[in-house]
Amino acid sequence: MQNDRKSSSNLASSTITSQAIGVFDSGVGGLTTVRKLVNMLPNERVIYFGDTARVPYGNKTAATVSAYTCECVEFLLEREVKVVIIACNTASALAMEAVQRISPVPVVGVITPAAEAALRSSRSGRIGIIGTRATVQSGAYQATIKNILEKQGLERDVEINVEINVEIIAEACPLFVPFAEEGWHYHPATRLVAEEYLAPLKIANIDTLILGCTHYPMLTDVIQDVLPNVRLINSGEEAVGVADAILHEQGIHAQERSLHRIVDCYISDKSTAFMSVAERFLGFPLGMAQEVRLKKW
Amino acid sequence: MQNDRKSSSNLASSTITSQAIGVFDSGVGGLTTVRKLVNMLPNERVIYFGDTARVPYGNKTAATVSAYTCECVEFLLEREVKVVIIACNTASALAMEAVQRISPVPVVGVITPAAEAALRSSRSGRIGIIGTRATVQSGAYQATIKNILEKQGLERDVEINVEINVEIIAEACPLFVPFAEEGWHYHPATRLVAEEYLAPLKIANIDTLILGCTHYPMLTDVIQDVLPNVRLINSGEEAVGVADAILHEQGIHAQERSLHRIVDCYISDKSTAFMSVAERFLGFPLGMAQEVRLKKW
Repeated sequence: MQNDRKSSSNLASSTITSQAIGVFDSGVGGLTTVRKLVNMLPNERVIYFGDTARVPYGNKTAATVSAYTCECVEFLLEREVKVVIIACNTASALAMEAVQRISPVPVVGVITPAAEAALRSSRSGRIGIIGTRATVQSGAYQATIKNILEKQGLERDVEINVEINVEIIAEACPLFVPFAEEGWHYHPATRLVAEEYLAPLKIANIDTLILGCTHYPMLTDVIQDVLPNVRLINSGEEAVGVADAILHEQGIHAQERSLHRIVDCYISDKSTAFMSVAERFLGFPLGMAQEVRLKKW
Repeated sequence: MQNDRKSSSNLASSTITSQAIGVFDSGVGGLTTVRKLVNMLPNERVIYFGDTARVPYGNKTAATVSAYTCECVEFLLEREVKVVIIACNTASALAMEAVQRISPVPVVGVITPAAEAALRSSRSGRIGIIGTRATVQSGAYQATIKNILEKQGLERDVEINVEINVEIIAEACPLFVPFAEEGWHYHPATRLVAEEYLAPLKIANIDTLILGCTHYPMLTDVIQDVLPNVRLINSGEEAVGVADAILHEQGIHAQERSLHRIVDCYISDKSTAFMSVAERFLGFPLGMAQEVRLKKW
């Protein structure tokens, strides 16, 4: 009996290990998170859902963002993913609770992991945040950092270097998304735009900057050149790190490299430009991107 | 009996003259067309519908764009507009027939009026078109110009100056929309972007350029500086000209300046940034912008 249970548990665990990691984003940007995921956890398979028909989420109400995100995450859950990463900053800010209610598997957003990483990284306590106008105005990163500082050492084991006051400087960089999608990663115009957007952060003498938008890792070089001594936090990469820790805790890492395609990509609307932008963000050929019609579409 | 009919006809005509002009766009951009409309026809009232919840249309299928456009135009028709202007280039390219089927009043798109204006304007026959990637790739302007040339002098009375071969050079300028929305109408970065996008048109020595996107009139100064001897055709302004001619033909111009608000603005999703962008595009305070939930939303 004891043996039976053990072998059944082993079987279940072995089934789970081979399940994919689900990654959701409102559009194409989350593929920068998948890029990090594939680099960091090369044995894992990924099922990606990009809600390209309804992107951007940033200017939609919280109720709408929650409804849309849940619908997309349900699609991933039907495909039996073992963990869900919400790569979209807006969805992470507005829909985490709703998604956690419907998900039987762990759900990881980008905001808390990036906020924790920034607090671990910063020495001076002067932390910058850049994102879309909606993300910056939502105050989600600012509130999360404040929350972590208040609960410091209680709920989570965040090793915070900051001992002095934390000062947060947040700037919206709306033109970064179209520049990243256009592929002008280091055009002179991109540099001029970056200098203008990042000037207040330079003046504020930040030592750590959260890239609070899935697209921004594509502009890392130009951002780093404008802010040379600043540690850049890739929010998607930090979320992958937290997902990795969860897989480790639960012992459900994939044991060997999958023989299946590494990334199954589903999108709610396929534009002609999608594949080229997607593969640039991902860093390798995508293979397939299947259009899926959603119920609420 | 004769008199009765006449007075009844006068009454009906008088009711129609006081009805508004409906303007539809996929988002905020169509307000540049409303700006021209208010300048050119100051007595007319305008009911504007911007489908801000589902913008952009450019990456959606023809069936989706037609369904969305018809739904929005029905909203305008319920408010008894006397003519409908489709300010959106994508909707003009993909949904004109569908809208004309459901509309009891005349419907004016932007593509044919702008194509005719370009053919009237050009001396050399070297005509440029700029728009979103979707508009340029749709080939709608190119096909319409070809169509007008083939039917020259038959169906429509277009006085075409061009006697030699017409050559069309089309360029997508995807970053122009976010620059216009961001309000960077004449930033050094905008200038660099314009120089790069417009270089092939400069080399091709065009004498006429169709601004095939509602946002581009906001960047007229920088475009004109890069292409100093080129006549710029504002597609929204040309559509207003055609609507004006229809009102004239039917004798249904507003006879005096309305005492009501000039522009009633309805949108399907109201972002925090909407009002400031809208008023910049419109050139005067908007007063109100009411959010409307659509059935297919």
